[in-house]
Amino acid sequence: MPFQNQLKAFKTDLDRQLKIYLDLKIRESRRISSFTEEITKYIADLTLRGGKRVRAALLYNSYLAHGGTDREMAMKAAMSMELAETYLLIHDDIMDNGTLRRGGLTIHEIYRRIADEQYHNKVHPRGFGIAIGMCAGNIASALSYEILTKLDCLEVSKNTATKLLSDVYVLENYGQSLDMISQVRDDVTQKDIIQVHTLKTMPYTFDAPIKIGAILAGATDADLAKLDDYTLSLGIAYQVQDDILGLFGSAKKTGKQTTSDLKEGKKTLLILDALDVANAKQRETIVKNLGNKRVTVSDLKKVRAVVEDTGSLAKSKKLAENLARKAIKVISNLNLNPSGKEFLVGVAQYIIAREY
Amino acid sequence: MPFQNQLKAFKTDLDRQLKIYLDLKIRESRRISSFTEEITKYIADLTLRGGKRVRAALLYNSYLAHGGTDREMAMKAAMSMELAETYLLIHDDIMDNGTLRRGGLTIHEIYRRIADEQYHNKVHPRGFGIAIGMCAGNIASALSYEILTKLDCLEVSKNTATKLLSDVYVLENYGQSLDMISQVRDDVTQKDIIQVHTLKTMPYTFDAPIKIGAILAGATDADLAKLDDYTLSLGIAYQVQDDILGLFGSAKKTGKQTTSDLKEGKKTLLILDALDVANAKQRETIVKNLGNKRVTVSDLKKVRAVVEDTGSLAKSKKLAENLARKAIKVISNLNLNPSGKEFLVGVAQYIIAREY
Repeated sequence: MPFQNQLKAFKTDLDRQLKIYLDLKIRESRRISSFTEEITKYIADLTLRGGKRVRAALLYNSYLAHGGTDREMAMKAAMSMELAETYLLIHDDIMDNGTLRRGGLTIHEIYRRIADEQYHNKVHPRGFGIAIGMCAGNIASALSYEILTKLDCLEVSKNTATKLLSDVYVLENYGQSLDMISQVRDDVTQKDIIQVHTLKTMPYTFDAPIKIGAILAGATDADLAKLDDYTLSLGIAYQVQDDILGLFGSAKKTGKQTTSDLKEGKKTLLILDALDVANAKQRETIVKNLGNKRVTVSDLKKVRAVVEDTGSLAKSKKLAENLARKAIKVISNLNLNPSGKEFLVGVAQYIIAREY
Repeated sequence: MPFQNQLKAFKTDLDRQLKIYLDLKIRESRRISSFTEEITKYIADLTLRGGKRVRAALLYNSYLAHGGTDREMAMKAAMSMELAETYLLIHDDIMDNGTLRRGGLTIHEIYRRIADEQYHNKVHPRGFGIAIGMCAGNIASALSYEILTKLDCLEVSKNTATKLLSDVYVLENYGQSLDMISQVRDDVTQKDIIQVHTLKTMPYTFDAPIKIGAILAGATDADLAKLDDYTLSLGIAYQVQDDILGLFGSAKKTGKQTTSDLKEGKKTLLILDALDVANAKQRETIVKNLGNKRVTVSDLKKVRAVVEDTGSLAKSKKLAENLARKAIKVISNLNLNPSGKEFLVGVAQYIIAREY
């Protein structure tokens, strides 16, 4: 089955399970109060209203690839990756001050508006929204652990999976911090950028799902170590492609404002590589627009031209392709079950084929 | 040994272990970057610079009381409770906009100042502080899980302990949300207040440490259920006493501004009970000062007088005493090892004897 169809079919199955799980959590929270029920409903809604389920599908297929046979259990474990995503999205949106996510309002924005309408004389609406949003993210984080601890499988597997999840959350939060600091400091190097990608995207997008799937299927530490080259290559390829989409993507395809990466002042490899070889005029075009909140589409087009003319775009594209090819080679050479392996190969092709 | 001395001796041992653990985490973070090292140092400093270690001591002594014999392992497990405390303190301080904690600056305030001094032209200092603070709290949360997953004990025990921790974090965050909403709504009931206490303080202060200690010693679900009456009574007694200290405590003993609970508009049982029987004049004294940011010490004294004259103070004191007595009765009747049991009895007396 083509990768995209496989992912779609998986999403249908997973979303059915996720809805059952989240409905249970809503009922549990209702017993406490109508207010905790309301928060849980917003967490459930955010989780269910979007998401391609790539991380969940990676866990599930890695489990099959490593010889796992309890598909029902693997599907439950896969839900954990979506709660992890919900946790990180809620907190990231607070940090980036984002108001929209997956086609709806972010949770901190929902509560900012509630406070603005009902309690503005008693509380600072933005602070109130942030506080409830932080709690909502923390709840999703706790649920991502809870799901793993309740799986019907070997205790040692659950425990190893939980440990990996905690490690990944540490790295993710280091990565998020580094990302923020890299946006305000002037002495950011290409090594720092790679470091941010390695920490912020790779661990939770690739390492956690692929290794937890393997662990639940009984993989040894040696088996897991063999996956490192694959997950690392995929992670960096993914982020490089993401940065390309962030600058060259259409709003329609990416769902983001075309100028938003430029406005944020994101020091991507694309930008750093371009600055490396730019002449004075090209350099000025980048410097005056990067991080400028009033950037226009016409400014964006000028920056795009510099990134293309300096060869930086071609360089990033080539890097993403090489990394994806490397990932495919690594995973192909491992002795894995064909059923899940097919997906693990497919995802590497999918990552660099994402459109802009 | 008297309870206070026992707690002091335990703190010395625990802090030695905690320092070793946190130094390791600092070294690990240094490998990533000097910036992640800096964050980890702030997490370590906040964890080590204060705290009575009651929660950690409860875990350790509950382990001994339930027949556990691996004191070294129990001491490591106890560290998890202190990282849990660090996580919740960091996030609570962001939500309450607190700048001081344990005699030093809060983490979000440290980074607000860094941004203010170095990056104020690139980023909103308060937003930057909040974002890094959120990450720091999330890291401490992940470490509290990591410690449990790495213990040298039965896999099933570790897994059950981890599951309990995740449940407690869900409740804690529901409690924190309810607490915030109760401060802005006018229709808060005594039941809501008890609910906040039950969720916000009890699970992580008493349920998590006491039950995780028991679980690691091999306690069954039936054993754990027997502890419910004890932990719930302790939890509510603790919070009722805390509210008394919040209104009647001296700044010297509690370390907080004497008027801060009143300024925050905390709808405690003390306040609600007083309002219940207050005459028109007494009622006005409370209503005009509760949540008033410009409350003076003279205003505080007037509110204190109303809470005393209405019999509300005596009622709360009686309630805390009765609950502590109940907790002592429940734990005394359980068939537990004397070594740890002594501490579990002592803590109930300690809670209501806290000075103001």
